[in-house]
This record gives sequence, structure tokens and C-alpha cells, in this order.
Amino acid sequence: MKKIMNDPKNIVAEMVEGMVRAYPQFVERLPETEALVRSDKSSMTGKVGLISGGGSGHEPTHAGFIGEGMLSAAVCGQVFTSPTPDQIYAAIKAADQGKGVFMVIKNYSGDVMNFDMAKDMADLDGIEVKSITVDDDIAVENSTFTQGRRGVAGTIFMHKILGAAADQGASLTELETLAKKVLPNIKTIAVALSGATVPEVGKPGFTLADDELEYGVGIHGEPGYRKEKMRPSKDLVKELLGKLKAAFNYQAGDKFAVLVNGMGATPLMEQFVFMRDVLNQLKDEGVNVAFTKVGNYMTSLDMAGVSLTLFKLTDDSWLDNLNYPVNTIAWTQK
Amino acid sequence: MKKIMNDPKNIVAEMVEGMVRAYPQFVERLPETEALVRSDKSSMTGKVGLISGGGSGHEPTHAGFIGEGMLSAAVCGQVFTSPTPDQIYAAIKAADQGKGVFMVIKNYSGDVMNFDMAKDMADLDGIEVKSITVDDDIAVENSTFTQGRRGVAGTIFMHKILGAAADQGASLTELETLAKKVLPNIKTIAVALSGATVPEVGKPGFTLADDELEYGVGIHGEPGYRKEKMRPSKDLVKELLGKLKAAFNYQAGDKFAVLVNGMGATPLMEQFVFMRDVLNQLKDEGVNVAFTKVGNYMTSLDMAGVSLTLFKLTDDSWLDNLNYPVNTIAWTQK
Repeated sequence: MKKIMNDPKNIVAEMVEGMVRAYPQFVERLPETEALVRSDKSSMTGKVGLISGGGSGHEPTHAGFIGEGMLSAAVCGQVFTSPTPDQIYAAIKAADQGKGVFMVIKNYSGDVMNFDMAKDMADLDGIEVKSITVDDDIAVENSTFTQGRRGVAGTIFMHKILGAAADQGASLTELETLAKKVLPNIKTIAVALSGATVPEVGKPGFTLADDELEYGVGIHGEPGYRKEKMRPSKDLVKELLGKLKAAFNYQAGDKFAVLVNGMGATPLMEQFVFMRDVLNQLKDEGVNVAFTKVGNYMTSLDMAGVSLTLFKLTDDSWLDNLNYPVNTIAWTQK
Repeated sequence: MKKIMNDPKNIVAEMVEGMVRAYPQFVERLPETEALVRSDKSSMTGKVGLISGGGSGHEPTHAGFIGEGMLSAAVCGQVFTSPTPDQIYAAIKAADQGKGVFMVIKNYSGDVMNFDMAKDMADLDGIEVKSITVDDDIAVENSTFTQGRRGVAGTIFMHKILGAAADQGASLTELETLAKKVLPNIKTIAVALSGATVPEVGKPGFTLADDELEYGVGIHGEPGYRKEKMRPSKDLVKELLGKLKAAFNYQAGDKFAVLVNGMGATPLMEQFVFMRDVLNQLKDEGVNVAFTKVGNYMTSLDMAGVSLTLFKLTDDSWLDNLNYPVNTIAWTQK
């Protein structure tokens, strides 16, 4: 293992320190935690707080999406490990402006349990908290750390939709209604070319042969549904879009947002080629693509591969939310 | 080699197609070329055009920096290969609004020659063209493809400074004066943990042992100045900042912008740890850091490693230029 780090035990704390010192205009660290809150407090006033978090190793998720129009706060757990309830609760308190706090949770058993305990702590203090659990990964049912489906890159669309709504004054109940309506319309599936190496472990969580790929791998290296020999980008698209088409049962004329997400070690060049092939196939199928993003949004340390997220825009206001202005480290404005 | 692509011969054309179809609000393709121009033409009116380009494989450089307040156009050569003069000339013509065009060239022999030929073509057509050749890499004098020093990640600061000035109405001559003043104040040095694999070649340009790193490697895998066993982040910072300190002869109280740039396969987590260590050492040395960026800006395909750029802010207006609003794919607003 070669990683740019000092002691692997301190890698998350040092990363968080690097983030807040590099980007003080966006994020501040909450004392004695690895939780981050928006620096521009005035942009939070009078609004429902929106928080997320989870194990680290998925950067820029989640802290890179803190800012006006997106998250109020985010909690960075140890690598691939849920943050503790007290750290999540610190984020809840920092995000609360008297209007309550909405939590976006990725569907991993540890996260679900700890965010739920943090909610209980908030209840005791009279802070109203609601949440959504994102389970957008259609690759497999149940997984190493999950009951049901895993929460992956589609979570970023949830951040964006709810962040825009919260910024425009949506109430806690309105955010919950919106989140529930959006959730079944976001679906993701990935292909991995290599495993990720957790710093404290020192070797990849799984290995693939030099000419092998695996479909459906999770963002912590959870097993996918099939390995096979490496194939051209167009064929990978055919496989992954085939699964998404079946899951959505989409038709010509349906309208989607599309996210091609790099897993960490895959160059943008390859991600753009993949997006081209996605757009070609969707065009052939008569699908209307109204919004696109390409880049490293929900990574898995140094894993090579991409995930593909489709978000069915059944409500026109959702496209407005996707295009709503933000100021964050990782989501560009336009 | 495992890459998400179709035919390696078409990888740049397909990447460019993916880019313009994913981000039509930012970039348009010039017909029959791999040159891209800003979509928002109205933001270019009455201003000097600013273009850049070079071999592909460094994404988001350069096309990711096209947009209001930054580049007018960019030319994507084949992987690690200079774009042809006719493609560069197409970008010049598209960028020209009657006020002339300024070219930012990275110091590689092929680029210098081809951008110069494109300037000659523009001269014949009465388009006034000036340029700067960026040679910020202090690692070595002369290199595989270079007379003098190589142009690397510091080029992005040049884009940003000149882009802000052009947007505020600077003349062609004013841009040239500014570029010449800025140039000696931008210096970069890198450390590589692995080589990059060019798609048409199929194997890494160089290899390092499992516990080995190399200081001073170029963005095309050009040799650096020393290999040694892997060391903690703090020690890498000590080595690289030591070289930069000697090159600048910087003193306590000097003011800098700092860019920590991922080479392609290095996770943000490691980049933030590295930035933390850079900021710690600069603080110990009494250096004033006024601006920071962390991320994959000038990559080298799937190379693992980081580069460190210091930009000495000897003129206060340069900090304003760094903070000047932009709308691009890859440079976030604030």
C-alpha cells in the first residue's frame, strides 16, 4: 500500500483539518468532532437544517456539498465506518435554526442505527428531526453492511434537491414529503475495475484480475453480481443501462438527470467517454436527458470504476432544484 | 491495462463528445476539431480572447476551465500530444472578438512550436495574438519533451489570473504585461507514487516498486530527480516545500496562494492530509497563505501522486483575480 498519509489512525482527523483550513469560506469544524458545519451562518437563518454524513473515504461526499443551497452540516466517520451518534448530534445542533433538521442517511446498518440514536438525543432536547434513508443501488438486495439496498451516488441528487428546497424555505414536513417522492426515482449501478484499500487495512478489499471487471460493486467494495472479462465502454453502458431500464421500466419520452460518477482512481477522460456512450444509448431509446454531471462525487478511496445514476424527473420543479444556485466545494454553480 | 474506453484511437474524440454533450451550458465543439469554445458567447463580446490547450490526459485541464471569467476556448490534442496548428488556429478564430487573442502555452517543445505556427496563421488573417509560455515545474531543467522547465499545474493559476483580467476588459498588451509579471511567481513540484498508462501504449510510462516514490516527475511521466522509499506525508511536504523555499527564497510574512493538485488516481482524502501538512509547515515558517485549492486540476491520466504549487502574491490585485467569479465545469465559484 502506498498512500499519502501520516498515521493511518489519524487520517480522517487530518483530512478534516486539511479541509477546514483549505476551505474556511465553506466549512468550519465543530469542536472536538469530525463534524463540519457551513461557515456562512447567515445563509442558514430561518431555514430547516439539512445534514448528512457517513464513513469517510467517499470524498468529496459529504462535506464537499456543505454550503448555501445544499447541506448545512456533515459528519465524517472513520474510513468506511459510521460516525458516532454524539458526532451526528453535534451536527444536528449546529444545523438547527429553530425549524428542525432533516437528515439524509445512506442505507447502511451502522449509519441507520447511529443517525437514529442521534435523532433520539435531539428529541430529548426538543429539536425536531426527520430523515430519509437513500437506497439507490439496484445491483443487489441486502449486502455486507446493509438490509435492503445500499445508498450510493444518487444520494448527491437527494442533497441537491432537498438543499434547494430548504434554501427556499421548505418546512421540515415539506422536506420529508419531497424526499419520499424523490427517493424511488433515483437509481444507481456501478462497475468496478479495482478494489479500494482502507488505510488501516493496507490491502485492497477485493481484487480483480488484470483483464477483469465486476458489475454491481458497492462503495465499500461490497460484492456485485457478476465478474467478467474487460469490455468496451459501450458494452459496460449496455449492461448497466439495461439494469436501470428494467428497474425503471423507462419509456421513450421519459425525462432524466444523469450522473456519471468516478470511484476515485478513474480519470475524467474515461468518465466522459462513458457518459458519451450513455447519452448515445439513451438517445437511441428516445429518452430525454435534461441534466448531466460527470466527475468524482461519491468515491470509494482509490477504487477504479464508475457508477451510473438515473434520476427520473417526474416533477418539473426537480430540474429547477438541480439547477438552483449553490456555493460548495464540490458542486459547481451552473 | 484496464480502461473504460472503446477504441483507444478514438478516446480523445469520444471524450470531447462526452464533454460537450454533458456540459452544453459551458462548452461547444468547433466543427471538425477537438477544440472547444465557450457556449456563452455574450460573455466574450468586446473582450480579448483567452485560449489554452495541449495534449489530452490532464483533465479537467484545459477544457474544464472554459467559461465566463476564465478561458474562451481550449484545444484538446491526442493523449500527451500537442494539438495541431490548424486546431489551435480554429480556437483562436473562435475566441477572437476583434480585440486579439492571448494564448497560455505549457512549455513543451511540441506545444510551443504548434501554438507559434497557429499564431503565424492568425497573423496572416489579421488577428493579433500574444502568448505566455508557462514553465512552473522547478524539479528539473530540460526534460524529455522540454527545453527549460516544464509547464504543469501552476498553469491553472495563470488561466485564472488572466481570465479575470480579460473579463474585466484588459487589453492584449495589458494581459501580456500581467502574464510576464505573474509567471516567475508561480512554481510547482510533484511527487509520484505510480506511472500513467497512455491508452494506445497499454502499459505505464514508468514503474515504481510497491514501497517507492519518485520526486519531481512530470505530467507525462517525465523522470524526476530522486526515487526513495515511501515516507509519511509530512516528510513529502518537507522535501517538496524545501525545494520551493529554495526556489523562491521565501521569508516569513510573504503571501502565497497554494494549490495541492491530485495527479488522477490519488483520493481527495490523501490530498487534504497533504494540504494540512503543507499549511502546518508554512505556518511554522511564518508564511501567509491567502488562497488555497485542493483537487484534481492538472492530472496525468491514472498517475497516483500530487503536485504542490505556490504562487507568490506580490500584487494584491492577484488575490482579487483568484477570487473573481467564474462559471466553468471545474473551478468552483467561491
